[in-house]
Amino acid sequence: MLNRFIVTLMLSQFVSTLATSTAGLAAEAKNYGPLTIERQGSFFVGGREIKSDALSTIPQFISQGTVEVDQMYVRYQMPLHPKPYAITLIHGCCLTGKSWETAPDGRMGWDEYFLRRGFSVYVVDQSWRGRSAASPVAVNSVKTRKLPPDSLPAFISAGREGAWPLFRFGPEYPTAFPGLQFPIEAQDEFWKQMVPDWNYSMARPVPTVKALAELSQRIKSTILISHSQSGIYPFQTAAMNPKGIAGIISIEPGACPGTDFNMSSLKGIPILVLFGDFVEKSKAWSKRLQGCKAFVGAAKEAGVQAEVVSLPDVGIHGNSHMLMQDKNNLQVADWLIDWTAKHVK
Amino acid sequence: MLNRFIVTLMLSQFVSTLATSTAGLAAEAKNYGPLTIERQGSFFVGGREIKSDALSTIPQFISQGTVEVDQMYVRYQMPLHPKPYAITLIHGCCLTGKSWETAPDGRMGWDEYFLRRGFSVYVVDQSWRGRSAASPVAVNSVKTRKLPPDSLPAFISAGREGAWPLFRFGPEYPTAFPGLQFPIEAQDEFWKQMVPDWNYSMARPVPTVKALAELSQRIKSTILISHSQSGIYPFQTAAMNPKGIAGIISIEPGACPGTDFNMSSLKGIPILVLFGDFVEKSKAWSKRLQGCKAFVGAAKEAGVQAEVVSLPDVGIHGNSHMLMQDKNNLQVADWLIDWTAKHVK
Repeated sequence: MLNRFIVTLMLSQFVSTLATSTAGLAAEAKNYGPLTIERQGSFFVGGREIKSDALSTIPQFISQGTVEVDQMYVRYQMPLHPKPYAITLIHGCCLTGKSWETAPDGRMGWDEYFLRRGFSVYVVDQSWRGRSAASPVAVNSVKTRKLPPDSLPAFISAGREGAWPLFRFGPEYPTAFPGLQFPIEAQDEFWKQMVPDWNYSMARPVPTVKALAELSQRIKSTILISHSQSGIYPFQTAAMNPKGIAGIISIEPGACPGTDFNMSSLKGIPILVLFGDFVEKSKAWSKRLQGCKAFVGAAKEAGVQAEVVSLPDVGIHGNSHMLMQDKNNLQVADWLIDWTAKHVK
Repeated sequence: MLNRFIVTLMLSQFVSTLATSTAGLAAEAKNYGPLTIERQGSFFVGGREIKSDALSTIPQFISQGTVEVDQMYVRYQMPLHPKPYAITLIHGCCLTGKSWETAPDGRMGWDEYFLRRGFSVYVVDQSWRGRSAASPVAVNSVKTRKLPPDSLPAFISAGREGAWPLFRFGPEYPTAFPGLQFPIEAQDEFWKQMVPDWNYSMARPVPTVKALAELSQRIKSTILISHSQSGIYPFQTAAMNPKGIAGIISIEPGACPGTDFNMSSLKGIPILVLFGDFVEKSKAWSKRLQGCKAFVGAAKEAGVQAEVVSLPDVGIHGNSHMLMQDKNNLQVADWLIDWTAKHVK
């Protein structure tokens, strides 16, 4: 009994020391000096050939031919002495891999911070977005009246007025929540990150999931960190092929899997579902948090190592939906790194 | 007279030493060790707000609102002791900034090589391409029948069969020119780089030009290196505002400016127009080379420091249109760095 008490005491001191040291790291990040990397580069995973006679509607380019779609662009950087598992960063709706780079107000992004903390870091552009090619066939086929207008995909952009409450910057545009950590003074730079999104017309699971399975196997051991729209992709990837997935961190998923998900595919993969602040101020997000709690409950019952954490419950306050860009983004990263150290083998 | 002879001799020895040393650098690139950088990150330049009620055609997203278009995504890396002028890399048609990164067969791209040679390097995605947002308005307006199908933009992709002779991989797909330096064994990875291109429906000059002017001023001193479709952009940028442009290297431009171009905007900016090999085997490229020679002739007559160089004429053979990815890409980069050392102040 006494032994147990002492162990608990020692553990709590250890955790407290950790908390201090990581807060220190975040605070020092601004003053980080030069960065030495072992290797960097970019490549594609996935992809399939399509043949079409609707590649072009102008004479300078031949309309007939073969193009590649569904592939996923990946940029990576490796530190000198990488940890045994890498980090793969998967952006959300209407955004690209840029989400994880320099924050709108110029602070360091997670892509570099995780690297500086010793992880190999992979940043992707979802299939059909950013540097990952979409197909021109539907647009050109409608333009030449081979297909009717409603064959066009849903090609949606998130306007700032609608995005504002969904990203939980505040109750409505342009009012901010008191204590908000998102740098709204730099919001113009943030809106420039947003791109049109084809995903809502694509078959499920979207090609990004297959590409993530290929990427995880290629890396051999990686934590998949997803955000928002891509929140569910790591789970779908594990169900397709768990090889190479060392852990799943799903940040503010648009939806968690249902309680009837194939939990056996998640066995041995530590799972964290993470939410920011102000969730109770949003009906949509409150509902999503409840859905994730139900999923995690069912996963745990099935023997999966899973948890849901809301940042305010661990003493981190003011985070928006874009928590990787919030002013305390490195503090959140530190917390995540502590989590991985405890849970990921 | 004797003095002049000795100086010439010394100079030619110096140039010969340079040539040897840079060839050595290229050969050693594969064995380059870890890379230390002073700073890296990404940001946007340019951009304008548009308000529309055609942002979405699905209920999950509000159709009305404000989005940002025309901005240009920029990623940069700075070495420890940068040269006084940076390098800005601007990709061509149907491609993104990926063009300059890791070559299809895994060799180092120019983005990293110029950095290792001491340049701050900026890589952009042209406006409306890659991580630089396009507008969804035309597509959604046609889908909802507010606009007729021919309001759709020309949204063109380059099929591999048509691209093959234009990229001068060979006379026709899939036959390669003897001695070709492009790594056609890795062509699958290359085709994955290609994305649909909106440029052909956009007003001239395209928004990328304005964004390049803003970027050049922000960097303060940069050589603009353009390729193919973007070949003419640096000239258009200088005509808009020459501030910050330390030099122009236009690689295989789709078109040079006409002989009636406003040459006074180019005064004091050293200009190189560079072509690869096999140009005489392509009617389209022979014509473009002739056009560039006419432009350079007129520029020189107007007192501009300009030249056209074909790589075979300086002893570098086998280069395709994608010479930044060819097997001798670092040798070509070395030659360019020598050129800048001689011409850029």
